[in-house]
This record gives sequence, structure tokens and C-alpha cells, in this order.
Amino acid sequence: MPIKLAANAYGKNAVNLSRVLRHAGHHEFRQVSVSVQLTGDFEAAHTVGDNALILPTDTQKNTVYALAREYFTGPIEEFGLVLARHFVARNPQVSKARIEIVEHLYQRMSFDGQAHPHAFVGGGSEKRRAAVELRADGTTTVWAGLKGLLLLKTADSGFVGYPKDEYTVLPETTDRILATECEAEWEYTAADLDFETQYQQIRTNLLRTFAGHQSLSVQHTLYAIGEEILKSNDAVKEVSLVMPNKHHIPFNLEPFGQTNTNEVFVATDAPFGYITGTVVRG
Amino acid sequence: MPIKLAANAYGKNAVNLSRVLRHAGHHEFRQVSVSVQLTGDFEAAHTVGDNALILPTDTQKNTVYALAREYFTGPIEEFGLVLARHFVARNPQVSKARIEIVEHLYQRMSFDGQAHPHAFVGGGSEKRRAAVELRADGTTTVWAGLKGLLLLKTADSGFVGYPKDEYTVLPETTDRILATECEAEWEYTAADLDFETQYQQIRTNLLRTFAGHQSLSVQHTLYAIGEEILKSNDAVKEVSLVMPNKHHIPFNLEPFGQTNTNEVFVATDAPFGYITGTVVRG
Amino acid sequence: MPIKLAANAYGKNAVNLSRVLRHAGHHEFRQVSVSVQLTGDFEAAHTVGDNALILPTDTQKNTVYALAREYFTGPIEEFGLVLARHFVARNPQVSKARIEIVEHLYQRMSFDGQAHPHAFVGGGSEKRRAAVELRADGTTTVWAGLKGLLLLKTADSGFVGYPKDEYTVLPETTDRILATECEAEWEYTAADLDFETQYQQIRTNLLRTFAGHQSLSVQHTLYAIGEEILKSNDAVKEVSLVMPNKHHIPFNLEPFGQTNTNEVFVATDAPFGYITGTVVRG
Amino acid sequence: MPIKLAANAYGKNAVNLSRVLRHAGHHEFRQVSVSVQLTGDFEAAHTVGDNALILPTDTQKNTVYALAREYFTGPIEEFGLVLARHFVARNPQVSKARIEIVEHLYQRMSFDGQAHPHAFVGGGSEKRRAAVELRADGTTTVWAGLKGLLLLKTADSGFVGYPKDEYTVLPETTDRILATECEAEWEYTAADLDFETQYQQIRTNLLRTFAGHQSLSVQHTLYAIGEEILKSNDAVKEVSLVMPNKHHIPFNLEPFGQTNTNEVFVATDAPFGYITGTVVRG
Repeated sequence: MPIKLAANAYGKNAVNLSRVLRHAGHHEFRQVSVSVQLTGDFEAAHTVGDNALILPTDTQKNTVYALAREYFTGPIEEFGLVLARHFVARNPQVSKARIEIVEHLYQRMSFDGQAHPHAFVGGGSEKRRAAVELRADGTTTVWAGLKGLLLLKTADSGFVGYPKDEYTVLPETTDRILATECEAEWEYTAADLDFETQYQQIRTNLLRTFAGHQSLSVQHTLYAIGEEILKSNDAVKEVSLVMPNKHHIPFNLEPFGQTNTNEVFVATDAPFGYITGTVVRG
Repeated sequence: MPIKLAANAYGKNAVNLSRVLRHAGHHEFRQVSVSVQLTGDFEAAHTVGDNALILPTDTQKNTVYALAREYFTGPIEEFGLVLARHFVARNPQVSKARIEIVEHLYQRMSFDGQAHPHAFVGGGSEKRRAAVELRADGTTTVWAGLKGLLLLKTADSGFVGYPKDEYTVLPETTDRILATECEAEWEYTAADLDFETQYQQIRTNLLRTFAGHQSLSVQHTLYAIGEEILKSNDAVKEVSLVMPNKHHIPFNLEPFGQTNTNEVFVATDAPFGYITGTVVRG
Repeated sequence: MPIKLAANAYGKNAVNLSRVLRHAGHHEFRQVSVSVQLTGDFEAAHTVGDNALILPTDTQKNTVYALAREYFTGPIEEFGLVLARHFVARNPQVSKARIEIVEHLYQRMSFDGQAHPHAFVGGGSEKRRAAVELRADGTTTVWAGLKGLLLLKTADSGFVGYPKDEYTVLPETTDRILATECEAEWEYTAADLDFETQYQQIRTNLLRTFAGHQSLSVQHTLYAIGEEILKSNDAVKEVSLVMPNKHHIPFNLEPFGQTNTNEVFVATDAPFGYITGTVVRG
Repeated sequence: MPIKLAANAYGKNAVNLSRVLRHAGHHEFRQVSVSVQLTGDFEAAHTVGDNALILPTDTQKNTVYALAREYFTGPIEEFGLVLARHFVARNPQVSKARIEIVEHLYQRMSFDGQAHPHAFVGGGSEKRRAAVELRADGTTTVWAGLKGLLLLKTADSGFVGYPKDEYTVLPETTDRILATECEAEWEYTAADLDFETQYQQIRTNLLRTFAGHQSLSVQHTLYAIGEEILKSNDAVKEVSLVMPNKHHIPFNLEPFGQTNTNEVFVATDAPFGYITGTVVRG
């Protein structure tokens, strides 16, 4: 039986781009990491080493910087669309261009209620992200989302009623800490939306639902978040959520003659529960 | 339009398990990280917080340790099968159990040609890994692979003949360093193989092909590796490879009156080329 | 010449402790990582394996959790003092106890101007930290500080007038991005201060000086920050700062017929300038 | 009281340098990360922003690459000495140059007993390292060492006889896993040694002592290693060791009706015991 190439793709990852927008009287600062991934007619490169259709990843990188000067002035979804269109338009051998952009968020400093014109604080684990796919037939898909959003609540969370077997040790609880490093990605129904407004609404809905939900499990809260986003935002087609359970285990103080009334916890990194789900319109 | 749950799964990740096998005269030491992922009838947990079918991830973790004592004595593929069968057999609500195991490799110490009975060195970035999926209908798939394998060659690698456009800066070269942190995963045709022997043969084929190939691009070498594995191992159905290009850029010594005859390089982490491909039987 | 033990110390690191303070109507959430380091009469453990004076690190860990219930209710400096006093008072073989605490900062969520009673967002790279040393003779030193504070300004920073030699390539600039991941530690003159108020004042002084300074080099700004902290806070004896230069290099757009007027940058991780200094009262 | 600059230093860190040595018939490949740190007369840069004596860190980086072509052909200690001498000789304002080099180790591939001429495997966590300090008065100190060396033994390790108090939970054991990520640094008595031979001897002594020692505690084994290195290597003045205790905790199988005869363990990352010591000639 002959051997052949199936799925394949390539591109430049981790193109770290910082952009200063020099407005009169103040600066904007943006920092992103861009990844380009091309799918297409690359079989000859694999099988006989013919690179005639392989746009070098170095060129892809240069393109990101060159187009950033003119076109990276708004939300990352828009810049992603610009890049995807460039690669598809210029390279007939490309059947699909996928652009992923992760934004490192910076807050403008503020002193005595005055926003500073050019000083910023960064460093949060929360990243905004977008992905754009443009196919040679012109169809486009845009996803937006976030990751690294560390959420925690100290009330309104429990876990009871689960099946028990001979390996069950976990006690039921109606009062636990619920913590997660939330990853969310939603698909938009169109490519010409006001991505900035959409994003901020969806993020607020996510936070508000997490905070207010009477959580009976991580799954329960995950679904509630997805449901709320779909209900409140018509432009969202579906939402995928990853919500690892960042366990906070009450430390056993009884050997020391103390009672731990859900006040002192060990936060563990491993192992961790890993809960994923996609919520869609039915 | 109503809202509903689509794809979803959950389980315990990063179950870090170390195992001493106490043979007469010497010990074996094994260290793995196990992940369990269950798919099934979990809709009620999401929509109304009913956990009656949610086997807790804590119980999953306990099961891994409890079964390890009797059953984790051979290759990780076999232990994965034991775990998958346990979860599917005991939980009718589970339609698919996926077990992923990553093994941290330890080398026995040796002094003056004598293998030490119980002292080991670990710490390599290379990890052996396996994944097993067992569905409620009894069908099973086994994948094996490795990741974190840092490969580098200082000859027999070039990159020429690629398309040029206005963003091209990269010079062609017939003599460059080729380096990658290789990730490989292959699917087996059966679930009752001698997984240890298979693994060692495939890994050797991978290394040998990387070393000996006259590389015209990363894609070219990726395909050659996949092709060789399929040619040499009938039990392999397909091979997926991820080979990021860990660029080594010749440092420009000309401003200092020196010529850099491919001897002094900067190894960069970002950005990096990201090349992926799957090789199959046609 | 005989061989002997010189400096040595031991203790438990990375004791990850989360604490819920259950006030009427709202909760506080705190998360810290505590390290205990004991110095003392531990020679027999090293030379002959006699552990009679080695308080196990497991016991140290338990002590942190047990004392947290009653005593971890205020700033980390105070909890550090409690722990140090415990270990020195109970263990006559200990000549010095050093406690280091790193706090992971959480922000209370807020919706429509209303603070939420029990939901929080974490995940910032900025960490508050403190170190306390208590010696058997009763003398105490308290340090406070922060790390992981990502600061960036897009104006008022330059670097000119440096010496040139045959390896100089860097062009002078009067307009560059200044970015650093600031690490600061200051020593207090006393152990009974209002540590919370002190901390907030010093942090604000640090940010304000960074933002407002006409920076002629990282060293110049580092010193200005240290000087301002000492001038404004009598309770501070000295300040040590680590300010790596997180380089933002203008991307060369000239090959593409564009001019880069300090708008498009590559942020690099390696190599990086590493600038350290301590500012003291003379 | 006036304010002034006390200790300060600066330099370029993380200068990632790869070097191919093209011998007839085979290549050598070396990869290091170099850090330069200069101490000296830098007060004016801090206090008034005068950079006349600040050799840019960019120039330091270029110097590393430029000197690597001719001088980085042997052990890292020798290349460190070359760099330190360069910076002190050329910069009268420098009172001390400290060079740190970490080497990423690559193994030549081998097939059927044949060493391959130009293909290598890297990726180990173990790093070789050296530090050199040269002062303006010509005095030199050379340290060598390693870090990231993951050592583990499954026998000949116990921990008993320690003090108990009300926070003691840990059971005594005469049979545990001893695991550590060893960090070692030793100071040489001279700067003109055969650094390669010294290094290999010391590393072997370290491994051999770890493996063979009847360990009564981490401290006990740490001291035994330091003592053996000093006894066997006259060129070593003192040895500092950092040996975190990478705990392996027997998993409690009793709830499941099983006995865990030291076979099934949980390897934990946090918290961890942190044991440090320096062994010297008396």
C-alpha cells in the first residue's frame, strides 16, 4: 500500500509585536503574539523537497510587522482578517489561512484620578485572543475569546449527589471554593461586527454569571455561562469553555485540636479536574 | 432558538504516579502523569446540576493509584488499556473513556560498567506518551508517541527555491542548522501488540531518518520520518509529526571585521516556524 | 586538612496557603506561598545523620496552616513575624528563622459599581512579598517588596552618550520604549509598623516615579525610584531594585519601503539587560 | 540624611550562543547561555544620567559572539575567563567583571555502535555551569557546577529520630524514595586547571556518593557528597549544594483494602523541603 501525505499545515508562531499608537496628547500601547498557519498545496515540498510553493515563515513574520504599521489600529479580530486576506490573496496555493492572535493586556496608569498619557502596567495572566480562518473560496470564520482568566468564589458552590464506588473518598460539600483558570472561545456569526463592543459585553456576562451562579458543579457553572452568553449576544453562534477545577482543599487541622470551618485551604496544582463543554443553539 | 449542550468531556488530569517495582536484586522506577477523560451522558449535570452520573474526578484519581499497584508493571499503553476498560465497564453512562499517559524517563545509574540496583537519573525533556480510547461498543484505539525530543543536526540541511515577494529578506542557504523539538504520535492497528518493542523500533527509525536525511526543508524531513516509520512498522496505521523549527541564525560578525563561516549562531525561541503533518497509507 | 560544614540552612518552601476571612456580608480571600528557612545547630544531622535537632519540614508546613487560622488575618509581614517567633521560641537549636511570603493578589469583582461579596479575579504577575528574619538574640529584620510588576512607558526615555568600541552597533536614541519587570525590596527600620499603609504608599511612589521620570537610562530611573521611596518614607532604611530591560526593538521596515517612526516593535525575551542597584541613606 | 547609591551592577543576561566546531570528518555542537555582569564606577549614570562610562549591554552581547568565534572552543570556564579579561582590560571603570555560563548539553547520536558525525540529541534538564570573576587588581575566582540534575534512589534512604511536637504528623520511615534536583557549585583553587577533567571527575563523585550513601536525611547525603568531592579533588576549595527534597509520598491504599508496600507513590511539586549547605576545608 503506498504511503502519502494527509493533513498538514505550517506557519510562523509567536510573532511578538508591540505597537504604539501616537495620538495627540496620549499614546496607546498594544502587545500581541501572532501565529500564521497555512494549509494548501504543499505536497511537493514534503515528498521531493520542492519549495516553490512554500512561502517562508520568515516572510510571513515580516508581513505581520509590515502590515501592522498601517492596519493594526483596532481590535485583534480586524487585524487577523487583514492578515488572512493578505495571505490568501497573494498565494493561490493556499487553501486556508488561519491567524491566531493573543493580546497581552496593559492598563494605563492613573494617579489621583488622572490617566497618565504614556505609562502602563501589564503582566496579567488573562489574555484576549482571536482566531480567523479564511478559505480560498472566500468563506470566513471569526472566533474570539480569552484565556488565563483566574476566577474564584468563596460561596455559592457545592458538589453533592455523585455516584459512590469502592474508590470514593471525597466527602460531599455544600460550601466549597470554586476556582478556575477559564478559557473561553466563541464563534461569531459574521466577520463585520463591532468586535470591541461584543468582546466587552461577553466578558462581562461571563464574569457576572460566574459570580452569581448557585453552582452545583463546575459543569453546572460552565453551562450557565455558555447559556447566558448565547442568550445575551445574538452575534454568537456557539461558545466553548474550558474550566479546570483549581482545587482548594481544606487543610486538616484536627490533629492539632482545631476545627477548620472552611477558612484554611491548600491550593493544589496537580492533579486537577478538567471540565470542557460547548454550548450551542439547538 | 433553544440553547443546548454539544460536545463535552471531563476527567482528572495530571495524576502524578510513581511506581517502584521491587525485583530481587534490583528495583525498577517508573514515573508517569495520567489523564482521564470521560465522554457520555452528562447533560443533566450541566443543565440542572444533577450529579447522579458524574463519577468524581477525585474517584478517578484514586482508581489510577489503586489499579497501579497490580497493573502498572509494563508499558504505558497496557496500563492505559486497563484504566479505560475499568471506567467503561463500571460506568454505563460513559460512552468513551480516553486515557493519556506521559512517562518521565529515568536512566539507571552505572559505574565502571556496573548497573546500579536502585539509583537513577531523570530530567530529560523527552517524554514517552500513549493515548487509549475505549468506546462503549468495545472498539479501542491505541496511539503511542513521544514529545520534547530535541533533535539537531549541523550538516545536510538547506532551504532554497522558495517564492520571493516584497517581504522576503531570508537568504537561501544550502548549509544550515536544523533543530526541532519533535512531537510524534502514531496510531496502532491493534490493541494487543508488543508495545515496548514497537516503541523502541519506531523511535530508532525516527532518529536515524532525522540524522541521515538530506534535508531540503523541515517539511521534507518530517515526511521522510513518517514514511520510514510506516514502511518499517506494519503495526502503524498513520503517523502525525509536529516539528517546530528551532531557528539558529548565524550572528552577523561583519561589522566587527570577521567572517562567520556558519560557526557562531543565535538560537532564538520566538518567533518559530511550526510545521505539522500526518503521513498515512494511501 | 579536615573537612567541615560551613553555611547551611533548610526548611519548607512553597507552602501554598489560601485563607477565607468570613466577615458578615462579605468574604476576604487571600492566597500566599510561604517559605520557612531555619539556620542553627544542624551539624550532627549532616555529619553523622543524627536528626534529633531537625524539626521536619513537614512539621513546619503543618505549623504554617495551623497558625494561619488564628493569625493570618492582616498583612503578610505580620504573619511572617508570627511564624518566625514560633519557630525561634520553640526550637532552641535555631539561631535564625527566615520566613518569606509571596502573596498572589486577587481583586474583588464589581458590577455596575457594586462590589461583589465573594467573587474574585486573580492571575496578575505582580506579587507582593515580605521577608522576616528573627534571630535567637531577639533581633528582627523586616523586608517588604514586590516582584513581577510589568512597567512600560512609550515616551520620556532615551539612551545616549555611552562609550563606543569596535563591537558597538546600537544606535543612540532619545525616544524609546522603556519596559521592565520590576522587582523591589526595601528594609524597614522597625518591626511594628503599619505595614499595609507603608506598602501602598511605597508602591504608589514607585509607579509615579517610573511614569514621570525623564529617563536617560534604566539605571537613572532605578535610582530615581529608590531615592523617591527613601525621601517619602522615613520607615524605609534602604531599597534594592532589579529592573531588567525588556527590550522593544523597532522592526526594520525599510526593506519594505516603509519608515518605522517608533510605532512597530519586536519585544524580545532574550538576551536582556539586567540592571540592579541598592539605594541607601548616606 | 543624604541618599546615595550602594551596591549596583548591570550587564547582559541570556546571551544564547550556539557554536559549531567543524572538525575534519565530524562536527562538535555547543550551546550556552552567557551572562555578563559589571561592577564599577557607575554612579553618575544613576544620579545624573551620564552614560559616559556605561558600556551598553548590546555591546556586551556583540562581544560575546565576536569572541566566541576564536575563543569558544573548550570548556566554558576558559571562555568565561576570556570574556572577563576582555571587559576588565578594556574598561578601566570596571572594578569587577562576572561572567556566568550555563551549558545546554547535547549527546551525539549513535547507531549500531557508530557515532554520527553531525546529529545530536539535546533537551536534558541537567545543565553544566561556570562562573568567573575577575577584579581590576587581577585576582580571579573560578566556580564550576551543575544544576537541574534529577537524582532518585529507591532504597538506602530513611528519616527517623527527629523531634516531635503538636504539629507533627509525619511518620518515621527507614525506607523511602530519596529524590532531588541537585544544584552544585564548587570553587577552584586556581584559574589554570584542566577544567574538563576536573568537571567530569567531580560529577562522577557526586553521582557515585548519592547512589551508594546510606542516607539518614537529605542533609546527611548532601554533606557526604561535599565531603567526597573535597577528599577526591585537591583543586576544589569548597562545595555548595542545594538539594530540594522532591517528596514521593506513598499513596494511601487502605481505604480500598490494599496495602501499599512502598510501591505506589505521589510525586508532589509543592511544598518541598529545601536543603542547602556548603562544605569546606577546616
